[in-house]
Amino acid sequence: MPRFALKIEYDGRPFAGWQAQADQPSVQGAVEAALARLDGGFASGARIAAAGRTDAGVHATAQVAHADLARDWDPFRLAEALNFHLKPAPVAILAAARVPDDFHARFSATERRYLFRLQARRAPATHDRGLVWQVLNGLDTEAMRQAAAHLVGLHDFTTFRSSICQSASPVKTLDEIRIEEIAIPHGREYRFHLRARSFLHNQVRSIVGTLERVGAGSWEPGRVAQVLVARDRSRCGPVCPPHGLYLCGVGYALDPFEV
Amino acid sequence: MPRFALKIEYDGRPFAGWQAQADQPSVQGAVEAALARLDGGFASGARIAAAGRTDAGVHATAQVAHADLARDWDPFRLAEALNFHLKPAPVAILAAARVPDDFHARFSATERRYLFRLQARRAPATHDRGLVWQVLNGLDTEAMRQAAAHLVGLHDFTTFRSSICQSASPVKTLDEIRIEEIAIPHGREYRFHLRARSFLHNQVRSIVGTLERVGAGSWEPGRVAQVLVARDRSRCGPVCPPHGLYLCGVGYALDPFEV
Repeated sequence: MPRFALKIEYDGRPFAGWQAQADQPSVQGAVEAALARLDGGFASGARIAAAGRTDAGVHATAQVAHADLARDWDPFRLAEALNFHLKPAPVAILAAARVPDDFHARFSATERRYLFRLQARRAPATHDRGLVWQVLNGLDTEAMRQAAAHLVGLHDFTTFRSSICQSASPVKTLDEIRIEEIAIPHGREYRFHLRARSFLHNQVRSIVGTLERVGAGSWEPGRVAQVLVARDRSRCGPVCPPHGLYLCGVGYALDPFEV
Repeated sequence: MPRFALKIEYDGRPFAGWQAQADQPSVQGAVEAALARLDGGFASGARIAAAGRTDAGVHATAQVAHADLARDWDPFRLAEALNFHLKPAPVAILAAARVPDDFHARFSATERRYLFRLQARRAPATHDRGLVWQVLNGLDTEAMRQAAAHLVGLHDFTTFRSSICQSASPVKTLDEIRIEEIAIPHGREYRFHLRARSFLHNQVRSIVGTLERVGAGSWEPGRVAQVLVARDRSRCGPVCPPHGLYLCGVGYALDPFEV
């Protein structure tokens, strides 16, 4: 059966997360329901696999999943047909591509990129509600950058890992944390760009929640280095809410969408 | 009674427009309901006046309204109290300012600035749904800029005016149309920035709908000059939908929020 990779954008607000669950709306469920309109295998319960299983309320601008289909679809027509059947769910297939049978959206991925949007202003968010995490007061970006530098590289991230994380090892290489600060009307937005081969469960939200404490002046930047080496979950800063988090890119040795 | 100016941001999606209407949710109604929690005059039916009465589905990042209150509020506390009472409506008071009694949000305004967001891509919008107008194919920005140049200056805008427009005269000076083109994932966004002392009803949407026809190649840029001088509503291009439109600034001889 021909295998296809799908690049998927979604608004996480109405979903209980990526992963299909009984009686709960999920992004995976929405995409599989659209596939079931086109393909007998999915009508009989075939499943898709994704690069990152995002939590409830988490967004994506470029999730990647793969699906095995009975027909050898033209990739453009496949994306168009899926977008038609996905309506009105806020899920869009940005691109589809024919991939080799050994391509696996999750296991072939060599890099994940996440964005976290944090806004500081007094007035509540309107257009961005559910799309950003909001705090009331401005943050010290330089202090957050100093603290973030301690986390880059190969470390045991036990401190920054959810207690229900299923990863075999807490040791990961974090390739980059870049913090952008931009002006918004009557406030500031801080964009945290994180890049790694793979992440532990809640790792991004644990890191951003901790860096926010540094930006607010409650933590010295050096305390982040101390809690990292402590390898103790109880010493992490508060885990920040999901709704500022975006899976915004997945890397493969050969990008299926640019071949 | 002390008069206050309010700078207001809102998501137009759930509203039938700015203007209060019986049995329909309006932005004016939401702000007046919040004022009624703080002020006896508003509890008894006092009204606010706004610089621009936006239509259903139209957004604002910086609408301005004024209100006469019984108490001499600290402006910061007034904004905070209104934001508290506005929840959960997607309406935010960005700033409040004490203004002279002869300040009028509408009649003192010397400039209005609008933004129209138009996105071209195949896949439907997700996070931006209801916040942009979407077309499927890319547009010719240079052709739209050429066409737009014919509209800048003092003209009779009868062609670009709604048939229900209540303005005394169709003659207006359009100070600027600037068109930005930016990359979005798998598409392009065109941002139309328009600036004038005042606009006719549906003028921005009539202009953007017409310029889109030019960008799509259906109209030559020069046809915009012809339909303008024709002063004939029936020769306008299609009026574009409201949900890409933002009132994003109001100018006053003395900016009440920067004094």
